[in-house]
Amino acid sequence: MTSRDCPLCTGSGGELVWQGADHRVILADEPRHPGFCRVIWRAHVREMSDLSSVDAARFMASVLIVERVLREQLAPDKVNLASLGNVVPHLHWHVIPRWVDDSHYPDPVWAPARREAPGRTIDAAALSDALREALSHT
Amino acid sequence: MTSRDCPLCTGSGGELVWQGADHRVILADEPRHPGFCRVIWRAHVREMSDLSSVDAARFMASVLIVERVLREQLAPDKVNLASLGNVVPHLHWHVIPRWVDDSHYPDPVWAPARREAPGRTIDAAALSDALREALSHT
Repeated sequence: MTSRDCPLCTGSGGELVWQGADHRVILADEPRHPGFCRVIWRAHVREMSDLSSVDAARFMASVLIVERVLREQLAPDKVNLASLGNVVPHLHWHVIPRWVDDSHYPDPVWAPARREAPGRTIDAAALSDALREALSHT
Repeated sequence: MTSRDCPLCTGSGGELVWQGADHRVILADEPRHPGFCRVIWRAHVREMSDLSSVDAARFMASVLIVERVLREQLAPDKVNLASLGNVVPHLHWHVIPRWVDDSHYPDPVWAPARREAPGRTIDAAALSDALREALSHT
């Protein structure tokens, strides 16, 4: 099941970090939110509840592995998880490390920005390595 | 584990629909988003990855039951799922039925509103009954 008009069917959706049989993890190009990852189901499926319960549980387990690695590697103040898909109705999870001094905190990243955020540099290569290592055991 | 300053420790957080041993479902008071439910972990826990994998899977299974019932009862155009907790860092999921003519679509409900939404009336009693029935089998 793919859709020729869907950017998550036709492209990776970001820097590919890990590719499993039916879902992948990418590092998003979100300069104001370093470490922003997405976990993307391979098939063009709309809602979590369209997956079988086994598939949904495996997919969510990967989302939580990403959350755990982000916490270990980046020590954010909070992690935000969301599956929205209003614009791109192809099942994907946003896994977003948040800091109290980021541009939007404590609002969600989809609200208007509250401030200029400090330039926070992360070690994307180390993060990608840690994600691949953790996801390789799934 | 409770926190005396936490509104989700000291109150239900909305109209209580279903109470399980370690989490509950409430119907939120969000007039612009009828059917907006929250699934709230009982203990004052911060992140999904603070739960055991068994607890996280059970909790998420309830979130997806709520999603499924909302789809069956209300036929929304999309469902949005999110665990944010920046303001109230007590683990809870937003399960939000969305319609293309709602106040924010296709933006997340945390973005600025785009329009006046049509007054959409839902049968909250029927929704609550269907949620209780579906969750009673967990």
